Amino acid sequence: MAELANVSVATVSYVLSGRDRPVAAETRQRVLEAARQLGYTPNQAARSLRKRRTQRICLVLSSLGGVPSDERLATDLHEMADARGYSVVTLAVYSEARANAAVDVLRGGVADGALINLAGDHLTRDLVTGLAGTGLPMVVLSNEDGLEGCDLVRTPEAEACAEAVEHLLAQGRRRIAFLAHRHELHREQPAGRLLGYTTALDRHGVSERIITTGADDRVAAYQTASELLRTPDRPDAIFAASDRAAISAIWAARDAGLSVPGDVAIVGAGNIDEGLISNPQLSTVGPLRHDYTDVARLLFDRLQAEEQPPAREIVRSWTFLRRGSS
Amino acid sequence: MAELANVSVATVSYVLSGRDRPVAAETRQRVLEAARQLGYTPNQAARSLRKRRTQRICLVLSSLGGVPSDERLATDLHEMADARGYSVVTLAVYSEARANAAVDVLRGGVADGALINLAGDHLTRDLVTGLAGTGLPMVVLSNEDGLEGCDLVRTPEAEACAEAVEHLLAQGRRRIAFLAHRHELHREQPAGRLLGYTTALDRHGVSERIITTGADDRVAAYQTASELLRTPDRPDAIFAASDRAAISAIWAARDAGLSVPGDVAIVGAGNIDEGLISNPQLSTVGPLRHDYTDVARLLFDRLQAEEQPPAREIVRSWTFLRRGSS
Repeated sequence: MAELANVSVATVSYVLSGRDRPVAAETRQRVLEAARQLGYTPNQAARSLRKRRTQRICLVLSSLGGVPSDERLATDLHEMADARGYSVVTLAVYSEARANAAVDVLRGGVADGALINLAGDHLTRDLVTGLAGTGLPMVVLSNEDGLEGCDLVRTPEAEACAEAVEHLLAQGRRRIAFLAHRHELHREQPAGRLLGYTTALDRHGVSERIITTGADDRVAAYQTASELLRTPDRPDAIFAASDRAAISAIWAARDAGLSVPGDVAIVGAGNIDEGLISNPQLSTVGPLRHDYTDVARLLFDRLQAEEQPPAREIVRSWTFLRRGSS
Repeated sequence: MAELANVSVATVSYVLSGRDRPVAAETRQRVLEAARQLGYTPNQAARSLRKRRTQRICLVLSSLGGVPSDERLATDLHEMADARGYSVVTLAVYSEARANAAVDVLRGGVADGALINLAGDHLTRDLVTGLAGTGLPMVVLSNEDGLEGCDLVRTPEAEACAEAVEHLLAQGRRRIAFLAHRHELHREQPAGRLLGYTTALDRHGVSERIITTGADDRVAAYQTASELLRTPDRPDAIFAASDRAAISAIWAARDAGLSVPGDVAIVGAGNIDEGLISNPQLSTVGPLRHDYTDVARLLFDRLQAEEQPPAREIVRSWTFLRRGSS
């Protein structure tokens, strides 16, 4: 159609989508005439142009750092993209500077839509909302308030985490340590897993807080847990913000000559399959099933919609699963 | 310059780079005139255009599946890209179909250069050589022969792996199992880690081969090793093609009531830090240091070169490291 009207594809897109760009009246007329000759309705044509733009979708993660749920999300998204003829490009937002750069890349049109996991906290709500404002079809995994113009995937972790910590309290444990992700400690207000931890302790009037990093990395978790468990007033329980860190904590307890859960109870978060082969099996809090097909489908629904549909929301619930380690 | 000559940026690029595209003589003249007015020499201008094309580089991995060396490669590449003002987009080549799609994405100009880890074997040598033929600056991690037009990063794993298996043979072990990556079993000829295993056994006249999958996934490795270790003629040693799988094999031995290395010796591959916190510490074969800065630098050297430099090669040597598990 751009050829028939002798204008650029971008101009055709502006005219047919009715987007707010200056196009000379005569040019607009030429485009609409070409559209009529080709039997397009403006909407269909604009959609077709938009859809053909790159046939790529973008996955935005906080890192390429071996987070099991990210791996599963990536696999499910790639599978659906394969089936629908889309390529997937992935952006890793390791830092705040990278977050700005990632937004620039998306604004530059690298993909027709984006699936964004906001977990790492480098991408701010403002950046994401600004991006949604450009009309880019987006699905965002985040528990933040105030995100608009995109589909949202919520994971209300805090209450399930509070339940896990209350389970430890009910056993009489009182010195409960929390192994946090670094980004969890950089927030102004505790949220998610950390909030679950503090909420449960508050409810039971336990004032002691033992909070360290370690959840991002297996070796760091081992070292942190080892140090904690070799102090005279060692914790009688560890709640780790990742299952990987919790498994390292089990190793640290074993190497410190402590029994799990006798001397120290250990609970992780995420419910990865590896928790079932650890010894003892890992108590954890997380989703009962690991399947992001419904999340991926939100994005493709949005890409294929005639017009941008109203924002939808998926809630992925978390459950506390008691096993041998607590 | 495109504005001054009243042509598209692509046209300027074709003219100044001397690439093989039809440009009308009059247009070519206009571009060269504009270039002269702006004080560009053709090479500089073409380079500047080329460099400004996207300011992105592309990382191509076989999956986003938690391979520790891929994570480190990604981190080092992102850090250098940050420092040099480039963004990084990542493509995961989960399948052969995805390999073709990834090549299309790169041919489509998603990035100014690519760092490709060929480990997963979905990207064939022909695809990669064809891509290099387009002039895209590329660095490829591969032990394949016949790759041309790009810098190569070689990791001669086979001999170091043979050394590890000979160490097991020297202890009198004769029933040595190999836990392979799936892609290792799909090759026509054994290569890399599997080749090291068969070579060592051949040298010592040991005809028994016990080869299974399992190296791609911790839980699969645990299950595979559990099955092997519960058979009456169980292996007296396991060589796993990944450290993650080897650690799972230690867990499987422990849960089968076997001692490591007394009843069964276990050796991994990769030398990840986690091997130092396992109990016993993991014998492994791999690089002594994990640092891909030199690899990332190859790509940026290539991006910033006036003309495409001759192909260079980096060799990352592997070493057998005996620790407690063997």
